[in-house]
Amino acid sequence: VEFCKKIAVSKWFGNFVTVAILIAGILVGMATYPDFSEKHASTLELLNKIVLYIFIAEIIVKMIAEGNKPWLYFTDAWNIFDFVIVAAAFLPFAGSSVAVLRLLRLLRVLKLIKALPKLQMLVGALLKSIPSLGYVSILLLLLFYIYAVAGVFFFGANDPIHFENLQMSMLSLFRVVTLEDWTDVMYINMYGCENYGYDGNEALCTNSTANPMGSAVFFVTFVLIGTMIMLNLFIGVIMTGMDE
Amino acid sequence: VEFCKKIAVSKWFGNFVTVAILIAGILVGMATYPDFSEKHASTLELLNKIVLYIFIAEIIVKMIAEGNKPWLYFTDAWNIFDFVIVAAAFLPFAGSSVAVLRLLRLLRVLKLIKALPKLQMLVGALLKSIPSLGYVSILLLLLFYIYAVAGVFFFGANDPIHFENLQMSMLSLFRVVTLEDWTDVMYINMYGCENYGYDGNEALCTNSTANPMGSAVFFVTFVLIGTMIMLNLFIGVIMTGMDE
Amino acid sequence: VEFCKKIAVSKWFGNFVTVAILIAGILVGMATYPDFSEKHASTLELLNKIVLYIFIAEIIVKMIAEGNKPWLYFTDAWNIFDFVIVAAAFLPFAGSSVAVLRLLRLLRVLKLIKALPKLQMLVGALLKSIPSLGYVSILLLLLFYIYAVAGVFFFGANDPIHFENLQMSMLSLFRVVTLEDWTDVMYINMYGCENYGYDGNEALCTNSTANPMGSAVFFVTFVLIGTMIMLNLFIGVIMTGMDE
Amino acid sequence: VEFCKKIAVSKWFGNFVTVAILIAGILVGMATYPDFSEKHASTLELLNKIVLYIFIAEIIVKMIAEGNKPWLYFTDAWNIFDFVIVAAAFLPFAGSSVAVLRLLRLLRVLKLIKALPKLQMLVGALLKSIPSLGYVSILLLLLFYIYAVAGVFFFGANDPIHFENLQMSMLSLFRVVTLEDWTDVMYINMYGCENYGYDGNEALCTNSTANPMGSAVFFVTFVLIGTMIMLNLFIGVIMTGMDE
Ligand code: NA
Ligand code: NA
Repeated sequence: VEFCKKIAVSKWFGNFVTVAILIAGILVGMATYPDFSEKHASTLELLNKIVLYIFIAEIIVKMIAEGNKPWLYFTDAWNIFDFVIVAAAFLPFAGSSVAVLRLLRLLRVLKLIKALPKLQMLVGALLKSIPSLGYVSILLLLLFYIYAVAGVFFFGANDPIHFENLQMSMLSLFRVVTLEDWTDVMYINMYGCENYGYDGNEALCTNSTANPMGSAVFFVTFVLIGTMIMLNLFIGVIMTGMDE
Repeated sequence: VEFCKKIAVSKWFGNFVTVAILIAGILVGMATYPDFSEKHASTLELLNKIVLYIFIAEIIVKMIAEGNKPWLYFTDAWNIFDFVIVAAAFLPFAGSSVAVLRLLRLLRVLKLIKALPKLQMLVGALLKSIPSLGYVSILLLLLFYIYAVAGVFFFGANDPIHFENLQMSMLSLFRVVTLEDWTDVMYINMYGCENYGYDGNEALCTNSTANPMGSAVFFVTFVLIGTMIMLNLFIGVIMTGMDE
Repeated sequence: VEFCKKIAVSKWFGNFVTVAILIAGILVGMATYPDFSEKHASTLELLNKIVLYIFIAEIIVKMIAEGNKPWLYFTDAWNIFDFVIVAAAFLPFAGSSVAVLRLLRLLRVLKLIKALPKLQMLVGALLKSIPSLGYVSILLLLLFYIYAVAGVFFFGANDPIHFENLQMSMLSLFRVVTLEDWTDVMYINMYGCENYGYDGNEALCTNSTANPMGSAVFFVTFVLIGTMIMLNLFIGVIMTGMDE
Repeated sequence: VEFCKKIAVSKWFGNFVTVAILIAGILVGMATYPDFSEKHASTLELLNKIVLYIFIAEIIVKMIAEGNKPWLYFTDAWNIFDFVIVAAAFLPFAGSSVAVLRLLRLLRVLKLIKALPKLQMLVGALLKSIPSLGYVSILLLLLFYIYAVAGVFFFGANDPIHFENLQMSMLSLFRVVTLEDWTDVMYINMYGCENYGYDGNEALCTNSTANPMGSAVFFVTFVLIGTMIMLNLFIGVIMTGMDE
């Protein structure tokens, strides 16, 4: 126990784990190059296993270090985070497909946040600032919801690609709030899908209705209010994060 | 009266109304899925009526709670807001079309702002910050007006889609200030509509005139000045809102 | 003299001039609707003359108000601004074309800045903040110049539309810094004009050369450095303006 | 030595070098106009040589000014920067191609940063603020790396243009974080390359797979988290830079 405690708090142990995380990251990055990763498949697989054993060893060492109360390990939210990421590899569905396995290995790179204390502090500060901005988020959600429902009512028939149902309407409004080609969405509903934006998708334009005033007012007010509340939220998160 | 007063200030009454608002919101959201809402039309209609009765009951309870001066209810701007949103359902034109009815029901979701005191405070702070930024708004309006009129004079003949009249010119400039594909508008007027951007709208390009220098100067200066004043306005609103 | 002084500082005189400016603004806005302005040509022309006479009267009153030193009127920068805008109507070239005449009339709307003291203060504060940010501007200019020259050297042959000469290169970089379809410019120079972005302008693509690495590094670094300095400049102007 | 010291710290010497830098800048700008620069080739070449001699003279004067320890000249990072930019002209490969020669000449314009003390301060402040923001950068890099690897795994087969390998995936994500036509990238992977965005590149679309939910969640979360951390980084750099 004493020995494990010493190890758990020693600097070289932290650095060792950090290096293992970096190697895990490089390994998962190499998997994006199919030619290379097939050629060295066995070596990479071996390294992946070593890295996994290091992560398991880290968890065991830290549990033993808690003495006769190993469950205290789980009182720290970051330890749970660590444990879940590693333990996921042993879930029954984990080996079912290459995609899931790769994703789980990729998520291990997130352990870097815990491995670097200052990075952990930074992420902690950003996360802590979210509840204090809960009401700005609710306001933003309310705005999105009202405009999304109104979008389906007004533009759903004319522009099914962007306003067919509530979820697509939400996605289109998120696009509008990032100012990404928002005028295309506006023009489709100003001029009707017959006259704008449905080239190549004529089959979807079954109910073209032009709404020049309504569409312009809808999108201009949404851009103005939406970007303002969004900016408010972002600056709020950053300012709260900086204070801590 | 005393009984109504107690109810009006009680916590469970506020929570009850909040739940009713949330249900109203879900109901109006369901109306965006035609298949589902037609199948359960009668149930949804019933729920909508119950929610409306709850809102009416809320208004009556709060009026009675004012004692023998029920008009005091209207001294609070938020109460008027509440009353108008609910009362609108009884206006003669309200039942005239499904679209209007749906919009009125949708607006009831805005009651959430009043139902959550902190959200009400936040919106109040944002609204209060607007007058203090009146002069930045006037400056922005002045900039838009001058550039919009100049836009019609210089580019109206070459580019009727974006600068046919004052209102379209304003809309195009709003697009430019959000940096949304602003170079397309600039290039049309730099190279003339014959050479850029009127593919598929050749019929509208009756008076193609290229204006390379003028167009570049017009749009670059507008982007610089416009985005700066716009950002000034937004940051001003956010900062004033944060102080409160 | 005393009489003119009283008039010059009286509140109703200021308001009277403000109203005249607003009418001038409405008149120039009406000129953007050809049908309407032709129908009422004589009335609008008369109103325009009356407004001009009011502006001239304002200048004369203020000059007389200075007593026996009328040139003191010109010691205030805003008075010179006022004088130039009105006097421009009497320059020989002013009547030469409708476009110039309209532009001069449009610029009179700028008199509103002087007419509203708080607006004058705001613009003054924004203008004063510019010299204090001179070095950020020089840095931005330096960045633009170096990248613009390098852009002509590297991409001028492949992409003449965007990098033919120094001025077009500057304009394209300004576009890139506003993040407006900047990847199109990058892809043209990554893949060569033969393979990307010159559809319909094949005649201009005489020297297609792909430069995948160079183009990506060029544009990504420019976007990172350029937007940062630009944002720095904008926030600097706003902060300095707010302090005053 | 004393004489060189006096020169090195004298104001006119600084101004003289600044003028030489400005001339170097104009000369390299002239080289972007092929007709003009060919016509006056010999004059421009002569001026370029004179400017280079002035820069060399500046280095020598400053070295001599250090007395019998000329190597002290290299203790200042800005002096090394100055020396490298000038010395590069004498490297063996410098004369190998016109492109390299021009680039080296262009980089001399950067000497302006050192020549203007306040500009040097500003750049110094911006550079100094970077280490203090190291952890925000690491967080951003981590985010980019995880999403880039996941992007290759999920979308590599469907959308080889944007997610073929790790470097292209990184570039596409950088594009997404600048909000530049990010919905195009999202729609390609939502609807499959057969149905969206591969017009003209059908040959590359060998493995079209639609992933509506996955793609929407991937890009919306990346835009939200990515722009927030990016904005955090930028505001951090600006704020730290302003404090100094
Ligand atoms: Na954009
Ligand atoms: Na865009």
